[in-house]
Amino acid sequence: MGLLDNIHSPADVKALPPEALEQLCREIREFLIDALAAHGGHLASNLGAVELTVALHRVYDTPRDKLVFDVGHQCYTHKLLTGRRDFSDFRDLEGMAGFPRPDESAHDAFIAGHASNSVSVALGMARARTALGEDYDVVALIGDGALNGGMAFEGISDAGRSGEPLVVVLNDNGMSIDESVGGLAEMLGRMRTRVEYIRFKKWYRSSIMPHIPWLSGELARMKQWLKERIITENIFDDLGFEYIGPINGHDIRKVENAIRWAKEYRAPVLVHVITQKGKGYAPAEKAPEAYHGVGAFDPESGEPLSGGEDFSAAFGRALTELAGEDPKVVAITAAMKEGTGLQQFQKAYPDRFFDVGIAEEHACAMAAGMASQGLKPVFAVYSTFLQRGYDMLIHDVALMGLHVVFAVDRAGIVGRDGVTHQGSFDVAYLSSVPGMKIYAPANFAELRSMLRKAVLEDTGPVAVRYPRGGEDFAGSDTSDVSAKTVYFHGDDVTIVSYGTEIHEAMMAARMLRNGDIEPEVIKLNVLSPLDPTPVLDSVRRTGALLVAEEACAAGCVGEKLLAAAEQAGIALRACRLVNLGDGVLPHGEPWKLREKMGLDNGSLRDAVLEMLHAEGKT
Amino acid sequence: MGLLDNIHSPADVKALPPEALEQLCREIREFLIDALAAHGGHLASNLGAVELTVALHRVYDTPRDKLVFDVGHQCYTHKLLTGRRDFSDFRDLEGMAGFPRPDESAHDAFIAGHASNSVSVALGMARARTALGEDYDVVALIGDGALNGGMAFEGISDAGRSGEPLVVVLNDNGMSIDESVGGLAEMLGRMRTRVEYIRFKKWYRSSIMPHIPWLSGELARMKQWLKERIITENIFDDLGFEYIGPINGHDIRKVENAIRWAKEYRAPVLVHVITQKGKGYAPAEKAPEAYHGVGAFDPESGEPLSGGEDFSAAFGRALTELAGEDPKVVAITAAMKEGTGLQQFQKAYPDRFFDVGIAEEHACAMAAGMASQGLKPVFAVYSTFLQRGYDMLIHDVALMGLHVVFAVDRAGIVGRDGVTHQGSFDVAYLSSVPGMKIYAPANFAELRSMLRKAVLEDTGPVAVRYPRGGEDFAGSDTSDVSAKTVYFHGDDVTIVSYGTEIHEAMMAARMLRNGDIEPEVIKLNVLSPLDPTPVLDSVRRTGALLVAEEACAAGCVGEKLLAAAEQAGIALRACRLVNLGDGVLPHGEPWKLREKMGLDNGSLRDAVLEMLHAEGKT
Repeated sequence: MGLLDNIHSPADVKALPPEALEQLCREIREFLIDALAAHGGHLASNLGAVELTVALHRVYDTPRDKLVFDVGHQCYTHKLLTGRRDFSDFRDLEGMAGFPRPDESAHDAFIAGHASNSVSVALGMARARTALGEDYDVVALIGDGALNGGMAFEGISDAGRSGEPLVVVLNDNGMSIDESVGGLAEMLGRMRTRVEYIRFKKWYRSSIMPHIPWLSGELARMKQWLKERIITENIFDDLGFEYIGPINGHDIRKVENAIRWAKEYRAPVLVHVITQKGKGYAPAEKAPEAYHGVGAFDPESGEPLSGGEDFSAAFGRALTELAGEDPKVVAITAAMKEGTGLQQFQKAYPDRFFDVGIAEEHACAMAAGMASQGLKPVFAVYSTFLQRGYDMLIHDVALMGLHVVFAVDRAGIVGRDGVTHQGSFDVAYLSSVPGMKIYAPANFAELRSMLRKAVLEDTGPVAVRYPRGGEDFAGSDTSDVSAKTVYFHGDDVTIVSYGTEIHEAMMAARMLRNGDIEPEVIKLNVLSPLDPTPVLDSVRRTGALLVAEEACAAGCVGEKLLAAAEQAGIALRACRLVNLGDGVLPHGEPWKLREKMGLDNGSLRDAVLEMLHAEGKT
Repeated sequence: MGLLDNIHSPADVKALPPEALEQLCREIREFLIDALAAHGGHLASNLGAVELTVALHRVYDTPRDKLVFDVGHQCYTHKLLTGRRDFSDFRDLEGMAGFPRPDESAHDAFIAGHASNSVSVALGMARARTALGEDYDVVALIGDGALNGGMAFEGISDAGRSGEPLVVVLNDNGMSIDESVGGLAEMLGRMRTRVEYIRFKKWYRSSIMPHIPWLSGELARMKQWLKERIITENIFDDLGFEYIGPINGHDIRKVENAIRWAKEYRAPVLVHVITQKGKGYAPAEKAPEAYHGVGAFDPESGEPLSGGEDFSAAFGRALTELAGEDPKVVAITAAMKEGTGLQQFQKAYPDRFFDVGIAEEHACAMAAGMASQGLKPVFAVYSTFLQRGYDMLIHDVALMGLHVVFAVDRAGIVGRDGVTHQGSFDVAYLSSVPGMKIYAPANFAELRSMLRKAVLEDTGPVAVRYPRGGEDFAGSDTSDVSAKTVYFHGDDVTIVSYGTEIHEAMMAARMLRNGDIEPEVIKLNVLSPLDPTPVLDSVRRTGALLVAEEACAAGCVGEKLLAAAEQAGIALRACRLVNLGDGVLPHGEPWKLREKMGLDNGSLRDAVLEMLHAEGKT
């Protein structure tokens, strides 16, 4: 390549002459397109942040200085510039992560997967620095989509008043994952395009800024007077930040200068940088949404190498159908229209589709307001992001028993995005919400029929949880028989599972039958309220229970079943809970994670054999 | 009294001549001071909102129109004006609630106990109205403290863009529960006092506003042009709201006019009203913080009728001590300095005390940032409000194993604030957080020693959970013996409990001993990670287990102990889990709630007798 081959650390970036930087950025883009074509990842946002990241590493000195990413999937250039160029095992188990990981590199100051936390984290670091008398710098890099999240506002409000020297760089591509929505996005849009505003800023910058180092007494007071009485610059200024911008994010010298100035200002400063998502790669510039998170693709044409319908798309189709039958059905997303499969719904019913931006708290409470007045709101949201709405699930939805449906996507093992994105917790936290009903479809047909029940027949809060990806086994709809389905009717061991994990359980059961063990498999369709009766009836005969589930150990269904067995006075000869455990589930290929946690069919078979062997059956 | 005696519904308020309103407001204040002197409640905020509430009921027509309170503890005047004048059982079990309750009156549009949700809820209602072709009005009443919460920002951003006719009334008393903090509060302060600003508003209002109904084409465009190019009014205007204010909230005619204008504008409008907390009652005007939530008091002097140290105060003293020993210890609160007992800490270590305002999400992530750079942050927060931080507990704190200490106040039965404030869920949700350690002190001495361990010795995330109120039994510190303490060593039944509930369990045990049953009582000091061994060892002898705890049923400690017993192959002859159940715990006197849930010593004794009787022991 040339320049990039000689970049092994931020020091090498700093050593380059300014005129070499454009070439470096070109090389980085080529590298990223090739690497992501082979491995998949977040392409468009990374292409947009190349100059910005190079500029940050020319100004700041990581790991001494703390660079806090928000969301963090735009960190690939940062990884490249901090000695991480091996993308061969990118996002594989034990390979390089797709997000910043302090345990991967000292240059990654903080974990970053959920949006809108960066200003809060950076302020915490800045306060720690001041309290402990240290002198490093702290900078947060936040996108315009993440800025819509309420926590970002809380962070900016607190930081603005703190006076702590810290810099927030706003990477504004005018469109986060989906189009940014809400008044904030419109405000940023006005700021981007308002010519008079930029002229004023230029005059302000050229006549006031150069004097900043000597700015004292009168001048500062005059500026303050001007700001307070005549003109409020904007929301950031209102909240106590010094605002610089907007700046063309692909003009690396301008970006570098602005960040350098901000760093030296020794106060809370926000640098507003305008970038283009997908910059430098025609297919991604044209359709950045399609290149947000991609699988492997053909680098020439941009065509994806694999396809097939997934649960999200099946959900979107099913909900669109239901909306045709009942005009009260509306759909809500928090900046995840494509991710949750709602494109078709939006096209068919634009007035009944609400994208609230990255704002899960608001989405839950807004849905509760809708339900209280007779609508049937369906909030489609990833399992891991609904954690943000836990309090609203209880306070705004459940305490009044409102009928809000939660389509909980990416439940269970998520895979390559990993760590921050695993859907490990929803079974535990949803079960604790008073009156919450939880469905667990195992295939598209069941998703359709359970969603229909949830939306048209049930009352109160309801969740339908389903995984990332497609249905490995189409299967038929066995959900409406009852709250459970029983297979095989064996007498040796009861195997319980739900969702798509049932397929692993069934394969394990088939292998056991070939080996002369007669299992009974129970598939749970409703996880809460949990009816333990069919499982108790079965274990009374078999005396042995294995529960396999894609959920964290604390508060899992297996725990509840064992407690119910104990309460029913049943002494099991053997039992085993196989789940996602108590710890942090790493990133990696889903099938490898499944193996690692003992949830694949081979491990399940072995677990049963071990259980029964221990008590003399085999 | 006079006027108030003849007010039975909002229609009666509307029928009064304008000149009678001041008299009505005086009578309401007198009534509130007397009623709250006898029963306790949120005095200062209600005294501040009298004129505002009267004005709202003169303009709007509840229950047809939807009046959405934020937090809702300033709803007493609203209750008075909607036919609820009997404060004799105020906040008692089955008595009138201290917050709006739709199941108490059709005039209460929505539940309200946790801050910052009102704009989201109101927007959901407004969207439902539009979608279903109805024509009622929606108005949200939010305080300046609640406005600091991120969800309020999310709601305003979405509402501003929606164009939905809805009115947000900002009741700005310049100080929510504690002083409002953050850039937002400073901004509101500037808005309150900026004379030029108000002059501009007056001109604007008098020259543009009267023409609004006929405002079309050119004029609207001119106004838009003016706003976009020349002057950004303020943050609300930025986010798509029409802004009116600031208005003197104790001038009832002005307030009524402003709200009426806002209602008729048919767009998102924010009315900024300035009120004084405690207005009209000298002791509360002088020290509104002390009158936020009060117990019974002497209406003449304002002196409280009861006192005594509570767990919050004991925590505050203990943390101040620890801060003296370790300069890395810092304290964080989310607008609950007094409620969590941190006044003394703030006085002793003002630079190490951080009040972030109502912003629990930010508080958690900010604490994580602090911990990542070597501070030892302690976030003191009510159990029910920490629900807001569930995602940050996982994402920002636990995934990196950061050492943040959560002082979880108001855990378990909270009592009179009730429903929205019960601390029912923390055991469940904290247990699901990877690596979270949970301590449960039973008295002040244990709180001190456990907090010391949590702050100075432990690593990773740690929670110390303790209840509202004082220690009924001082007791000695039995926490550092091990993760549990065993009393009585009986062979008939094992009774397990933790926290202050242990006292009920001990009294039940003593009664049982007098009746010839030999119980063994195990007090758990650490709830997570849960070591079931002592309990299992005990039940192997006794064969019977009762677990009494102030926690919701799903994910409770009892469930985990039963699952562990089943896994250990122990068949109990009898078992019973006594806890806060699966439903919604009502408000009421703590002792009555305890009885209702079977957690008082008499009920526990009876439960044991019943258990043992069922299997023939007695």
